[in-house]
Amino acid sequence: MTDIIFPRLALIGIGLIGASIALASRKAGTVGSIAISTRSPATLKRAEELGLGDAYFADPAEAVRDADCVIVCVPVGACGAVAEAIGPHLKPGCVVSDVGSVKAAVVRAMAPHLPAHVNFVPGHPIAGTEHSGPDAGFAELYQNRWCVLTPAPGVDPAAVDRLARLWRAMGANVEMMSAEHHDLVLAITSHLPHLIAYNIVGTASDLESGIRSEVLKFSASGFRDFTRIAASDPTMWRDIFLANKEAVLEMLGRFNEDLSTLTRAIRNGDGDTLFDLFTRTRAIRRSIVAIGQDTAEPDFGRRDHGRS
Amino acid sequence: MTDIIFPRLALIGIGLIGASIALASRKAGTVGSIAISTRSPATLKRAEELGLGDAYFADPAEAVRDADCVIVCVPVGACGAVAEAIGPHLKPGCVVSDVGSVKAAVVRAMAPHLPAHVNFVPGHPIAGTEHSGPDAGFAELYQNRWCVLTPAPGVDPAAVDRLARLWRAMGANVEMMSAEHHDLVLAITSHLPHLIAYNIVGTASDLESGIRSEVLKFSASGFRDFTRIAASDPTMWRDIFLANKEAVLEMLGRFNEDLSTLTRAIRNGDGDTLFDLFTRTRAIRRSIVAIGQDTAEPDFGRRDHGRS
Repeated sequence: MTDIIFPRLALIGIGLIGASIALASRKAGTVGSIAISTRSPATLKRAEELGLGDAYFADPAEAVRDADCVIVCVPVGACGAVAEAIGPHLKPGCVVSDVGSVKAAVVRAMAPHLPAHVNFVPGHPIAGTEHSGPDAGFAELYQNRWCVLTPAPGVDPAAVDRLARLWRAMGANVEMMSAEHHDLVLAITSHLPHLIAYNIVGTASDLESGIRSEVLKFSASGFRDFTRIAASDPTMWRDIFLANKEAVLEMLGRFNEDLSTLTRAIRNGDGDTLFDLFTRTRAIRRSIVAIGQDTAEPDFGRRDHGRS
Repeated sequence: MTDIIFPRLALIGIGLIGASIALASRKAGTVGSIAISTRSPATLKRAEELGLGDAYFADPAEAVRDADCVIVCVPVGACGAVAEAIGPHLKPGCVVSDVGSVKAAVVRAMAPHLPAHVNFVPGHPIAGTEHSGPDAGFAELYQNRWCVLTPAPGVDPAAVDRLARLWRAMGANVEMMSAEHHDLVLAITSHLPHLIAYNIVGTASDLESGIRSEVLKFSASGFRDFTRIAASDPTMWRDIFLANKEAVLEMLGRFNEDLSTLTRAIRNGDGDTLFDLFTRTRAIRRSIVAIGQDTAEPDFGRRDHGRS
């Protein structure tokens, strides 16, 4: 039996991530009551139908009143406005966190609105699916996943520890780093891959209509893998690229340099350069499987929909 | 009970694709005996240990003697040499095919070596996994997958039909088109996605060693999807890019133009352009799931290795 870590948890925003926190922390028995607020009345109503919380508020300021922990689960671009709305209503000692995929910009947007008597511990659970909304949430989402916390140097270590325990009780592995380092790592592991996936799916969708239907039909030959990532939530990802602009453009620059080299090798019929790269990349896959970050099953273990 | 379509089948090359043909056609009962030849003595021995065929030959010329159907299952770049080796030994009326991911270049390489008394029906089963070699083969690989045949206009329709029936009995859906059209469609659905995946995994592997280990650790945030494709067989893919150079460079050109637009949108903070693209690409994913070319399960139905 896990002890209650936060008697009162408030979740502002109740999409895939917020709903999964509600379900997972409830299941773990680490929170007493859960207050939920979200901007859309339809989503708030849906959260209530799903029984995700104990109380539901249109106004985030009401939801955070008396909360011991507030986790802001809205797209990165909306974090500043939420912090401004809840700041004056936060209880002294409250742990305030978020789940944004970008950290430095979120800290810049939220911190000025938070009173000195709360503990701000920004967070990023590296988990999700291509689905969104409260119905997409599930209690196991954070099992064996990383959750990165990026507290500023002066923050109370006891507050950081409480939040870390909440995440661990949901099954996550907690890692600490600076907001800036987080943004650089995620630019290459997440933001650039999403950008490239969005781009190639866009290129295909712009093809003449005759060939476009064939692109869908024969998508199992590689293309469909990209469409999964390119089906991620548009608002969330727009905000991520705008908020982590510098790191994304830096990684994109490196990607483009490498792509020029590869293009030249194809144009010149330089098979050795291609073979060397393709051998190196195969080794990277093996490392990822070896450290347990992906399945070794062929084709992700995908069944009955063909393999590529 | 299916009737025997080809009393004697010969497979030249016995990797993932050849081994799966052996297992699937045997299971379907559509072939009498299977002769296997491959260049590597170790692979030939392994094929025999796995019991994939009835007879094993180091020399492809011996394997094709008396064969009613020969399917060349070697990397695209080796097809010409195989055709040259087997050409003089082919029985009149024999159906000769291949499984190459590029068709026009394979036709150019093989056709000059094939006698007029055989029926050349190039083929491409759009199936595979990131694993390779005879041990990776399995009888269900072609279930509900496309197999494209690209016979030249003058080829005997009865021969095309026999080969089509062989593929259908393995579970595949057969589609006919010209070699040139095939190469254009596959350039966007398969070759460009592989090139981009190889490139981004290469970019990540070139990072400073400190950040590189974190790229592996946090790969579930998007990157790992690319590493699966970038783990495909290096020889096979080197040959594909060299053989389908023009179509790949054409699609790469379009991709680059689109990436420039996207980069400019990020640099200028133009959220509307990003949001519009991301909404369009989400619809493409839905179409692919709707036509049964991929699973609707979150994260490809991948289990216990996190989701992204």
